[in-house]
Formats: sequence, C-alpha cells, structure tokens
Amino acid sequence: MKTDRIHNFNAGPAALPLPVLEAIQESFLNFAGSGMSITEISHRSKWFEAVINDAVARVKRILKLDSRHHVLFVQGGASLQFCMLPMNLLKAGDTADYVNTGTWSTKAIKEATLQGKSINVAASSEDRNFSYIPREIAFNTDAVYAHITSNNTIKGTQWAQFPSTGGVPIAADMSSDIFSRPLEMDKFGLIYAGAQKNIGPAGVCLVIIRDDLLARTPVNIPTMLRYSTYAEKNSMYNTPPCFAIYTVQLVLKWLEETVGGLDKMAELNRKKAGLLYDCMDASGFYRGTAEKESRSLMNVTFRLPSEDLEKDFVAEAAQNGMGGLKGHRSVGGCRASIYNPTPLTAVEALVDFMKTFERRHG
Amino acid sequence: MKTDRIHNFNAGPAALPLPVLEAIQESFLNFAGSGMSITEISHRSKWFEAVINDAVARVKRILKLDSRHHVLFVQGGASLQFCMLPMNLLKAGDTADYVNTGTWSTKAIKEATLQGKSINVAASSEDRNFSYIPREIAFNTDAVYAHITSNNTIKGTQWAQFPSTGGVPIAADMSSDIFSRPLEMDKFGLIYAGAQKNIGPAGVCLVIIRDDLLARTPVNIPTMLRYSTYAEKNSMYNTPPCFAIYTVQLVLKWLEETVGGLDKMAELNRKKAGLLYDCMDASGFYRGTAEKESRSLMNVTFRLPSEDLEKDFVAEAAQNGMGGLKGHRSVGGCRASIYNPTPLTAVEALVDFMKTFERRHG
Repeated sequence: MKTDRIHNFNAGPAALPLPVLEAIQESFLNFAGSGMSITEISHRSKWFEAVINDAVARVKRILKLDSRHHVLFVQGGASLQFCMLPMNLLKAGDTADYVNTGTWSTKAIKEATLQGKSINVAASSEDRNFSYIPREIAFNTDAVYAHITSNNTIKGTQWAQFPSTGGVPIAADMSSDIFSRPLEMDKFGLIYAGAQKNIGPAGVCLVIIRDDLLARTPVNIPTMLRYSTYAEKNSMYNTPPCFAIYTVQLVLKWLEETVGGLDKMAELNRKKAGLLYDCMDASGFYRGTAEKESRSLMNVTFRLPSEDLEKDFVAEAAQNGMGGLKGHRSVGGCRASIYNPTPLTAVEALVDFMKTFERRHG
Repeated sequence: MKTDRIHNFNAGPAALPLPVLEAIQESFLNFAGSGMSITEISHRSKWFEAVINDAVARVKRILKLDSRHHVLFVQGGASLQFCMLPMNLLKAGDTADYVNTGTWSTKAIKEATLQGKSINVAASSEDRNFSYIPREIAFNTDAVYAHITSNNTIKGTQWAQFPSTGGVPIAADMSSDIFSRPLEMDKFGLIYAGAQKNIGPAGVCLVIIRDDLLARTPVNIPTMLRYSTYAEKNSMYNTPPCFAIYTVQLVLKWLEETVGGLDKMAELNRKKAGLLYDCMDASGFYRGTAEKESRSLMNVTFRLPSEDLEKDFVAEAAQNGMGGLKGHRSVGGCRASIYNPTPLTAVEALVDFMKTFERRHG
C-alpha cells in the first residue's frame, strides 16, 4: 500500500504526512470508540469538541499566541477571506495598505476594491513580473491593517523577513507557509491560511485574529461573514467542516510531537529548499525564476532551456514516481512545492532525478 | 471493525452508508491509482475532475434535471445560503416570500432582513410552536422566489406536497431531505442542501439553480458569494472541498446503483418512518410532537411521559448501541433522525428497543 505512493510535489492540495493519513484510515469506521466515522459524529458531541479544542490549543501553543488571539476555522478558503477581511475591518473612512506580490495579492486587492473600500497599494513587484518581494515600503501609519501574501505559490517568492509597518498590524495571507517557521506574532493583527498546503485538506481556512481587530467587526453584515460569529461560538455557529478540522488537528499533532515544533520545522524546510536551490545554482541547465533574496522555501520555481525539455522533465519525473512538478498554468515552467509534510527523502529523490536528467539532456 | 459500530440516529452530521465509508477507507492512501490520498490530489488533476464531473452528472440524472439547471458545490453550509440567496437574487425593488416553519426558516428570514432586502413572511406555523406545515398560503405572485424549508429537523415536520405559488419559483432549503424522494423540478428555481444529513459529510453545500435565477446574480458582490462564479467555473474558481465532494459522489453512486434511485429510496424512507410512527401511535407512552399530516419522514420527534424517562431512554438506548436520540437542545425530548443512509435494520432495532423500554417503564 505504502510502496505504490508517489513523491507528491503538488502546489495544493498537497502532500500530507503519511502517519496522519494512516491514522485517519485506521479509525475511519470507528472514531475514538464512538462506533461512528469521524464523518458521522455530531459536531456537538464530546468526540468532536475534543478534536476542535485540541486543534485550537495546538495552534496557540505552536505559534505562542496569547489571550488576545482568537483561532477560528472558516469555510471558503483564502478566497473568501479576500472579501471577509475588508468587509469586517474597514468602515467608511478607514483605509488599508496592500502589497502586491502576485496573483493572490492581486485577488485580495480586487475583492477589497469591489466592495468600495478605500485601499492603497503601498508597493508592487509587478514591474519585474512579481519575481521579488518589495523592500523599502512606505506604509501608511493611519491604515487599519497592512496586507501581505507571505508566500507566493505561483511566482515562488516569500517574505524572508516581515516588514516594519510603523505599528500598523499586518494582515497576512499565509496559506502556503503557515507553520513553516516561527513568527513574531506582535507584528500580526490577522493571519489566514487555507489548509490545503501546510496543514490539512482543502475545505477549511484557519484564521487568527487579535482582539483589537475583532472588535471592529460590524453587526450588520451577514452572520456567516462576521469574524465575531466564529470567535463567539468556537467556530461552531453552524456545522463546521469536521473532517477537515480533524485532519488539521492530526497534522498539528504531528508537527508538535513528531517534528518537534516550528524551530525544527524551519530547519528542515531550509534544508529541503537548500538542496533544490543548490542543485539549480550549480547547474547551467535549471534556471530559478525568483530573485535570489526573495526565493520561497515552499515553492521552488524553475525553467529548463526549452518548453519541450520542461514537458519531458515533468513526464519523466512522473515515470519515476514524482508528481505535481508542472508550473502553474498561468506561468508555465516547473515547480516543486515542498511544504511541511514533504519529507527530505522526496526532495533528495528529486535532486537525484534532476541531476540525471541534466546529464542526459544538458 | 464493523461489529463495534453503533446504530447512528444523529441529526447531522449523520450516518453514511457503510459501503461508502469502506470504499473511502480502502483507497485512502492511494486514490484511483494516483499514488496519493484523495486529500492530497490537485483539484485540477484528471482524478478530481472525474470525481466532481461524476457527482454533477449523478445529481442531474437522479433529479432528472435539464439544461436549465446548474449544479454547484459551495462551502459554508446552508447558513451561508441564507445570506447568498437574497444577496444574489433580490435587487432594490424586488421582493421574496418566506414561509416560516421553524428555526432554520427563521434564520433564513433574519439573514435576508439583515441585508435590508424586502421580504414578506407569507405564512408561519409559529402559533402552534412550529408543529405543522401551513396550508392555504397566499403567495405574492410578484415575488422573485418563495422560500421554504422542505424538512424541519428540530420540530420534525416536512412538506408532504410542495405548495402552489402561482408560478413563482420555489427556493428550498432541502438540507435534511434532499434525494429522499422524487421532486417535480418545475416548481423549483433554487435548491440548497448542506451535505451532512442525506448526502455526505459536513463541509459542502449542494446548490441547484435555474438559468433564469442565475441570470439575476449581480457582478458587484464579492466573487466567492456570487452563484455565477461557481456556475462558470464548475465550482472550482478556488480550491473546492475535495474530500467532501468525493464523499458526496460516492453516496450518490450508492443511491443510484445500490438503492436504485429516488422511487426506491422514497419507498424505503416511508417504510422506515412508518415503523416508528406506528410504534408511537400504538402506544400511550410515546407521544409524537408534530401534527400527523405534517410529520417528517426524516426526523421523528417524540416525548416520553417525563423528562426523567427521556433521559433514561437516551441513556439505555446508548447502552444498547443506539446513538443520537436526544432531541435538539432548544426543544428537548427525543428524536430519531433516519436519513437516506440509515438502514431499515437500524430502525427495526430502535422499534424493538422502544417496545421493550415501554414495557419496563410504561
């Protein structure tokens, strides 16, 4: 069963830790002695209460959150957050800063603008095809929040350090690098992350919101679109996506107990990405598309000398048990997504294959 | 493994067909030869495309939909639909009718009102504690839609026939009885159903919308809240809740191929509910709470002579391998939810237990 699994470099939904998948499979017909599947138990039952409370506790512990932070599970993915964030936090007369670093930031800006909110694009890397993270940004200190996309899956860039905003809380889309490294939580007022890259399956979005921003939530917007609804009801105003939250709980348990927390995770992620970037940099064959200082440790994007070679590369990799290496359909090229769950052995196998491929075709 | 499973009478999330759970478990580490779990495959992959396309095709075939109907999968449950429905369909000057038959209808009305939409409560059964479905309703023929809740999980009532609305399309919350019986689709303009009762796990909501109502969707509301976004992108504008949609696909396959379609399903549902209502009616001990003509075939609500006996009933049932029989926390009493997946044998076991309990305590 295990041996016919591939090395999964998908950009999302993406690889999950094998022990997590095995635990789900093992108890799938009878969860925690309930006599029911995790998909059949009531969200008001003691069994699910234990799941969601443990998931919340692990998020707080892993990120060293304090009592100001609320941990929410919301449906609709990061794409719904693009609209919920300005809807909840910006009243008439309020303004927010957005840094545009690619496709996802652009969508976040679009959804704020669509609602007629006053926002300011404080910086953009569109001038060089989003191949870098802007530096020296003049943030507006009157902004309610400063929005960034911490990691850009399509262009393969990542904020190595988070910007100084003059005290304005950062609101970050961390869908593709949440829990990949320790965070200075003092900088952040709100973090959101679709689960399907670093922490679980598609179908749930983690939101962390600080008291002062939560207090801005208006009462006259739809109940399901208000952060306060989720904060007041432990994310169970209505039936939550139980299976997805359960999987997140198991991934966080794996992160704490098997990996050993965020410092260990960050070290492993640096090592994995380092192997790939070193391979590219030592070669005249593979060419990284992101500027060096802005390279992502999660999504390694690269080109080969020709599109034909790129097609061959992806096809031969698949024949060798490596999937998901095709670049995003909007940019082409190749991409290896190596989120938290991707094991070092998978990256080592890919590097070996890249070297062999280069020898044969270079 | 199977023998330690209980008879599950939960109101939702609820029982799923055992063969569906077994199929998920069996392939959980390697879906369809992909070498990945269903939770790890890309939603843009051939594997997931096949899943969602098959799920859509089955919905259309089972309900005999035509080319006017669009089948969408949306996150956020029926509770998000309470807001999306009026947001999408009611412009300034438009009005809609709502029939209030309990908790869920009340919430649907609240979310429309919250948005400042013009709605008219055409009928309500609040006068007798929502124990019946209103008849002889004067619908407004100028309404854009007439909203009903086809089955009321908390009060145990259900529309046996759907009302004549003078041509106004019905918009129905069918979360708790979708696919339980054939539908005259000509009456409906929009149907929505949270999956976690009759068709799958929590985390996805099925929406069926007709062309003429879809055309009303405005372009200036948030992208993720527009029905047209889902219709144009086969529910994959962003990453959909893949695992939940996959489970829905398997439940629909079971409904078509194992049960044999909606006529067979309806017959079985009448038989299951009949056993329970006959047991109650033959007893002076159990007392149904819904008026006879309005009884639900999905949620059988009843009281015992005292609250102490109700507590004993639920506890002893649990000792006998039957779970989920406690009434909703807002109304108390007992409730047996017997959605499509609940097998006849589970209902027979419950009836036997009810008779034994009555003999000992009656």
